[in-house]
Amino acid sequence: MELRTLLHEILEEVRPLQQQGQVAQYIPPLALVPRSKLGLAVVTLDGEVHAVGDAEEPFSTQSISKVFTLTLAFQQLGEELWQRVGREPSGTAFNSLVQLESERGIPRNPFINAGAHVVDDIVLSRYAEPRTALLDFVRCRAANGAIADVAAVAEAERETGFRNAALANFLKSFGNLERTVDEVLAYYFFHCSLAMSCVDLARSFAFLAHRGICPWTRERLLTPSQTKRINALLLTCGTYDAAGDFAYEVGIPAKSGVGGGIVGIIPDRLAIAVWSPALNAKGNSLAGTAALERFTTRSGLSVF
Amino acid sequence: MELRTLLHEILEEVRPLQQQGQVAQYIPPLALVPRSKLGLAVVTLDGEVHAVGDAEEPFSTQSISKVFTLTLAFQQLGEELWQRVGREPSGTAFNSLVQLESERGIPRNPFINAGAHVVDDIVLSRYAEPRTALLDFVRCRAANGAIADVAAVAEAERETGFRNAALANFLKSFGNLERTVDEVLAYYFFHCSLAMSCVDLARSFAFLAHRGICPWTRERLLTPSQTKRINALLLTCGTYDAAGDFAYEVGIPAKSGVGGGIVGIIPDRLAIAVWSPALNAKGNSLAGTAALERFTTRSGLSVF
Amino acid sequence: MELRTLLHEILEEVRPLQQQGQVAQYIPPLALVPRSKLGLAVVTLDGEVHAVGDAEEPFSTQSISKVFTLTLAFQQLGEELWQRVGREPSGTAFNSLVQLESERGIPRNPFINAGAHVVDDIVLSRYAEPRTALLDFVRCRAANGAIADVAAVAEAERETGFRNAALANFLKSFGNLERTVDEVLAYYFFHCSLAMSCVDLARSFAFLAHRGICPWTRERLLTPSQTKRINALLLTCGTYDAAGDFAYEVGIPAKSGVGGGIVGIIPDRLAIAVWSPALNAKGNSLAGTAALERFTTRSGLSVF
Amino acid sequence: MELRTLLHEILEEVRPLQQQGQVAQYIPPLALVPRSKLGLAVVTLDGEVHAVGDAEEPFSTQSISKVFTLTLAFQQLGEELWQRVGREPSGTAFNSLVQLESERGIPRNPFINAGAHVVDDIVLSRYAEPRTALLDFVRCRAANGAIADVAAVAEAERETGFRNAALANFLKSFGNLERTVDEVLAYYFFHCSLAMSCVDLARSFAFLAHRGICPWTRERLLTPSQTKRINALLLTCGTYDAAGDFAYEVGIPAKSGVGGGIVGIIPDRLAIAVWSPALNAKGNSLAGTAALERFTTRSGLSVF
Repeated sequence: MELRTLLHEILEEVRPLQQQGQVAQYIPPLALVPRSKLGLAVVTLDGEVHAVGDAEEPFSTQSISKVFTLTLAFQQLGEELWQRVGREPSGTAFNSLVQLESERGIPRNPFINAGAHVVDDIVLSRYAEPRTALLDFVRCRAANGAIADVAAVAEAERETGFRNAALANFLKSFGNLERTVDEVLAYYFFHCSLAMSCVDLARSFAFLAHRGICPWTRERLLTPSQTKRINALLLTCGTYDAAGDFAYEVGIPAKSGVGGGIVGIIPDRLAIAVWSPALNAKGNSLAGTAALERFTTRSGLSVF
Repeated sequence: MELRTLLHEILEEVRPLQQQGQVAQYIPPLALVPRSKLGLAVVTLDGEVHAVGDAEEPFSTQSISKVFTLTLAFQQLGEELWQRVGREPSGTAFNSLVQLESERGIPRNPFINAGAHVVDDIVLSRYAEPRTALLDFVRCRAANGAIADVAAVAEAERETGFRNAALANFLKSFGNLERTVDEVLAYYFFHCSLAMSCVDLARSFAFLAHRGICPWTRERLLTPSQTKRINALLLTCGTYDAAGDFAYEVGIPAKSGVGGGIVGIIPDRLAIAVWSPALNAKGNSLAGTAALERFTTRSGLSVF
Repeated sequence: MELRTLLHEILEEVRPLQQQGQVAQYIPPLALVPRSKLGLAVVTLDGEVHAVGDAEEPFSTQSISKVFTLTLAFQQLGEELWQRVGREPSGTAFNSLVQLESERGIPRNPFINAGAHVVDDIVLSRYAEPRTALLDFVRCRAANGAIADVAAVAEAERETGFRNAALANFLKSFGNLERTVDEVLAYYFFHCSLAMSCVDLARSFAFLAHRGICPWTRERLLTPSQTKRINALLLTCGTYDAAGDFAYEVGIPAKSGVGGGIVGIIPDRLAIAVWSPALNAKGNSLAGTAALERFTTRSGLSVF
Repeated sequence: MELRTLLHEILEEVRPLQQQGQVAQYIPPLALVPRSKLGLAVVTLDGEVHAVGDAEEPFSTQSISKVFTLTLAFQQLGEELWQRVGREPSGTAFNSLVQLESERGIPRNPFINAGAHVVDDIVLSRYAEPRTALLDFVRCRAANGAIADVAAVAEAERETGFRNAALANFLKSFGNLERTVDEVLAYYFFHCSLAMSCVDLARSFAFLAHRGICPWTRERLLTPSQTKRINALLLTCGTYDAAGDFAYEVGIPAKSGVGGGIVGIIPDRLAIAVWSPALNAKGNSLAGTAALERFTTRSGLSVF
């Protein structure tokens, strides 16, 4: 079956699921996004783009942006990064403080919020212009110079972000932040507020399917071994404490965000991004997860 | 480079690592195994076998055997299995009781000991001759009719198995065992005592690399989708609470045992088994993990 | 007001509360006890007995018996006892395994089940005839040679006691039991099955109100300092994980059991026992707690 | 023996213990206090004062001040207070976030830091001039108009108080703070910085030994029943997660602070305060605890 046809079929099959689940409520601007939004995009390594539904409409990337900051930090520190953050599934909710306490301020992995704060602290220390560095990175990866952060979203998150403030203060109390709590939180809310479409996101993850080389700029961003390792982290930790279920159902390295986006890759093949705002109990897009599950089952493509 | 040459090189490189780590002490017969044992075997899907070092000497499979009982249970129950056991990484040690308490007797995944007890309970209820069923399964998969359990190992485990007795009684108290605690433990110690060589193990995992079909008997054991799912579980939960690190370093679905064995697969390609008795702090073979890391890095083969 | 009048008044006031709460269901013979049973007894140090309601009817002492075994063990080991069991409130349910794991097999205090198993192990090791020793102790304390265990209750507990079996096996795995799991559990179920009335229980606790001397036999059982210490343990740990609430409401050292009994003391004054089978959510007699709260508030007697 | 003689003897006996333990390091001004400071004061309900050693030198009250804010909040809210904070021993360190997470933002008791923040939030909401209210309260209780906070201590705590900031933000995320995080923390550091001597502290706790009436002003501050309840909380929760051990060793309601002070009461008798800066592993004054243990053992006075 032609790929575009498959994507269309999947889109129609999962559309009824949009009535289930909850649109994230704790960030007011996100709560306003209609649950009827639905987009799906596949980008192959030769640059072909297959976009259906609302795949070209930007939405809030939220935690998906953690993959970009991790790449920036990993480029600078390499394996040294793991002295300040672990790489094991957390087994608990993404914003939990419990493990942080018993493990003396070393977050379990870079995709839980505490881990992302540590990564942000590294980016802030290693890049002269950390905001510009991130914007340049995603604009080049997505081949879209219009990608930008949304100040109103960042501000709304800051105003209600007591849990993140708790985590960052807790990390600071363990000595695992170099910058001030306010700097780290400001940068965190900045990158979570990046608005990107499914097409942007699929393009921007393509280097992870291409052994670390950006398919459009031919730039080497990570070594093949480093790329394997980021993909392993995405598979084991990329979808919060549902990573086991997600690997079981979908079977590809992927990262989700509470804006309803999920982006995944199949090595040497393609990157795929989906958007549907209503979330399941674990905080992953409900219809989005179902769409990806159908994609890997029907196409027979997965990492397993 | 020729595959056999690569395996020989890897074997010599990791040999010094055998001096590090600890041979499992809590099961007396295992404590007697010399730490100098080292074997490595690759079996490709056309049946070609590459065996170096002690790859043909049988050793105690221990937790690796949980993959066989899971397959037997999954064949009978399919998705219904997940009503009694989860499929998330545990985030804690393999023999922990903590999560079991907070999660009301539903073990996190089928590879931690409590999860394996539930799987054993299912096998005991669904097979008229559960021991024969398991022996038949592994003998066919490994094409080796001589594979057998070792009563002295099972007995030694029973005598010192207070933690397993605690887990099984705890599961029983939550109503998640149908059979008696003694029956479940006896079966558990039976299958953990299976003695198999690296070649046996690599052959017996080959169906997981072959979309569920046994390459030698042509028998379909699982559907392609079921196979993907077992492989996902191996990747996220197969190496105890080091699954994140293992995925990061090695990047393939694999199962380890405290006898020092690790078996993994690369879909559509091969199965690989390694044996070195001394374990790292997480309970996985230390030199064995290093050998697999070298294999995936040098060969460029992994699921990522 | 005369003491007997006060006791009568309290009894009538709390009688309606007997409709609330749950009679313990997990031990079949206990589940059969009518929730309408209600007794209250006060024994003063000069031997005067004030008994109202069903205060002379024996019932299952259950966890109250842990105070007797603790006294027997403390008499033998003194302060050495605390190398094998702690003396802090657990903060979790009485039959929890969680802390036991993180604290390497040292139970938090001697009144949670795991702590009682360790105490039982000590009694079994230090007394030639541990059952006789316990029966002699309670018969002398209560001045009632007819007190006995109830084999049918012990047997019923053994048959459903998977949680206790889990705890004892867990202790054994940490090396904190000298005797076999079966011996310890048999002794535990034996003493939990002791049948005693409110009058028996109040009499048998009187030595704790009398600086360690049995008021009737004039025998010194504990030093004044040891007595202070057992009373402190009763206050901080005697009513499961409701000890804080119980101290707040009632304000005296006391021990409860799932048979619906609670026994407490006021130093230099009296011992008081109450019985009402229906339990609150924390496992303490609901009407019994209310009766004791009224007693300390009305009489102005408490340790605070 | 005369009381003053006893106090002198105890002082000399515990003086060598001052070499053990650690003076609190995380608040710079506290780290500068010489470990040789040692004071002991007893105040009886008729106003007699027995002061030995450095009993008249003010030191930082730290957590002891939580008893004053709790009294202010309890006066306003009564039993309603317990909707926002529990009254059970925490079983974990005083600044732990773990339970707060599993118990949805309701701190275990008012003496752990998170509980004190909630109490502070209530005082801030219920008193027009919360700082004045507290200063007036302690000055009247201690009959010492010179008692004051120490701004440099409060400022030093604020600068290093990331753990407290984490706790307060966490409470806020659960909706259990009405005021801003900054207001609550400022008030918390204010009252922790109160400087008082052993004599001041013993005098200021005397109402808790006197059924709620201030012995000097004759003012009723709490009802007898409320007083019993605060004393019960002090006994079960007043000395961090060592409350069980402290009750066992000392056997009186008491509150400790990391400044090295401990204040306790014996109902209808006296209040006693001790100061020695070096702390044991649980954060209670090491020599101070030993002094109180000797006092209750030698005098035969305790609540048990």
